[in-house]
Order: sequence, then structure tokens, then C-alpha cells
Amino acid sequence: MIDGGPVPLTALYPDDAKSIVIRPIGYVVNDKKRGPSAFGITGGDISEIRLYPGMVRFMRGLEDETSLLILWHFHKARPIRSVFARGFDRKRVGPFASRTSDRLTPIGVTEVELLEVRGTTLVVRNLDAFDGTPVLDIKVSMAGLKRSREQREQSGPLG
Amino acid sequence: MIDGGPVPLTALYPDDAKSIVIRPIGYVVNDKKRGPSAFGITGGDISEIRLYPGMVRFMRGLEDETSLLILWHFHKARPIRSVFARGFDRKRVGPFASRTSDRLTPIGVTEVELLEVRGTTLVVRNLDAFDGTPVLDIKVSMAGLKRSREQREQSGPLG
Repeated sequence: MIDGGPVPLTALYPDDAKSIVIRPIGYVVNDKKRGPSAFGITGGDISEIRLYPGMVRFMRGLEDETSLLILWHFHKARPIRSVFARGFDRKRVGPFASRTSDRLTPIGVTEVELLEVRGTTLVVRNLDAFDGTPVLDIKVSMAGLKRSREQREQSGPLG
Repeated sequence: MIDGGPVPLTALYPDDAKSIVIRPIGYVVNDKKRGPSAFGITGGDISEIRLYPGMVRFMRGLEDETSLLILWHFHKARPIRSVFARGFDRKRVGPFASRTSDRLTPIGVTEVELLEVRGTTLVVRNLDAFDGTPVLDIKVSMAGLKRSREQREQSGPLG
């Protein structure tokens, strides 16, 4: 549904645009719920990301990072509006000029602070995803990589 | 392929992990190619993102933004290694502690500078995707949103 009516995929995508299948690697556990406003989220700022057991082999070095990029599925997205008042500043924009969850590609991206790794569970601060949200990927953030490098350089060649 | 051998999906994902289908919204045009090293990219730092014509209805306000987050498909990804020397600093890590394109969820995220919008084409700086890469989503970056707000506050109530 877009702007209150059904829109055929052929009106949006060319025939040769190949679709991609992605699978969640885990899910979010926290006390957040969608709030009363259109874009608000209630709850604390600490979340757990519980990765599926098979993901353990891809986690090497994760515990040394402090800043991660989390990709997650907007699994509770609603119909798309092509113009709306953006949550951040109420400016009237389209989905591409916003962070709305109500968009063609239902993927959220959030930079979080990694507090702790316990087995395949990550404890993070600042993830703006609801409880139960499927997590699609974890990357080290560019800010985190730059910080690692600065710390290494400060500690000198023997550090 | 993971670490040189086939790995069944059931070893990675639980049966009830629902897959998601996403579709590209456009593609990249630039002169970048994969470079001679494992993670290097050659070419200039200006790219065009050509959105499909049907995307025009979601672009309202995009021309006012300077900093965007681009989600794109790692369409040339190679077999996954669970541990490797990270491109940024050669530290040995797994995919989740890196930005490698060789990962379970083949989605790249890059913050770019928006230089110009011409119809459904965006001219951007700093997109580290090859020519022909499918683009999956465009969002305003958090840094861009904060900058917009600061500028508005500086320009005062009549600005």
C-alpha cells in the first residue's frame, strides 16, 4: 500500500531488477514498544541482540569493538506515504529524505555502543528497534574503526 | 561457501527465521572497479546513483540534504571466510567485526555526500561501490539531520 492504495511492483521496479533474499542472524530483546506518536519508541536504552548459535563462527574480534552498525528488519512497518512530516523536525519529505520505517526497503540501520558480549548475545546501548525485531547484520562502524586506529597509534609501536 | 566448503542453511539459521525479499531501487554508475588487493577499489570518488523512474514519488526534500546513507547490494561478493585480516588495519577478525563484502547478509552501508540531484539521478561523493552495483535504499544520515537542525536554529525563528 502506498498513499492509501495498492501499487503494482511493475510500477516501481523494472522487470530486470533482481530481488535479493536475506535472512535474519538473530533478534532483539528489550523493553521497547512503539510509542503513542507516529515515530516514537518507549523504553530504556539498553538492548540485547541474541544471535543464532550458528553465528558464533563469524564473531571473532567483536568483543574488542565499541561502536557497531546494526542492520535490522522493520518488521512492523506500515503502509508507505510518499510525503509526510519527518519525525526529526516535522519537515515534509519523502521516505528517501527520512529514516522512517515505512519505506520500500524495510531495513533500519543504527549505530550502537557495544557494552558486552556474552556468548552469542551482544548487550548494546542506543538501538532504536522494538523487542522481537529480526537483526540482519552487524558491522563495525567507521567511527569505531577510526577510534581503534587512533588508540593503537597513541599506544606506540609496542602497544 | 564458507571457509572453503559448503555449509547448509540449516547450520546457520533456525527453521523459523523468516527470510525477507528486497528489491533494488536503482544502480550505481561510476568508474570504480575492484582493485588488485583483496578489498581495494580503484577509481574516482564521484558516483551517480540512478534511481528507477518509479522512485521519483519518494524523493521529496532529498535535494535539501547533504549527507545520505546508501544501502547497496554486495553483488560481487565472494565465499565467506570466518576469520581474515581486516582491510582497515589487518587485524584478524570475523565478518561481524569488519566491513567486508564477503558476509552472510550481502548489504553495504556507506555515508556519502550528496552533491546534486538531477531528476532521479543523485550525484554523490565517497560511495565505495563498484559501477553497476544495485542500490537498495537511501536514507538521510543522522549526521545530516543534526546539521540541518543546527542550521535552522542558527538562522533563528524567521529563518
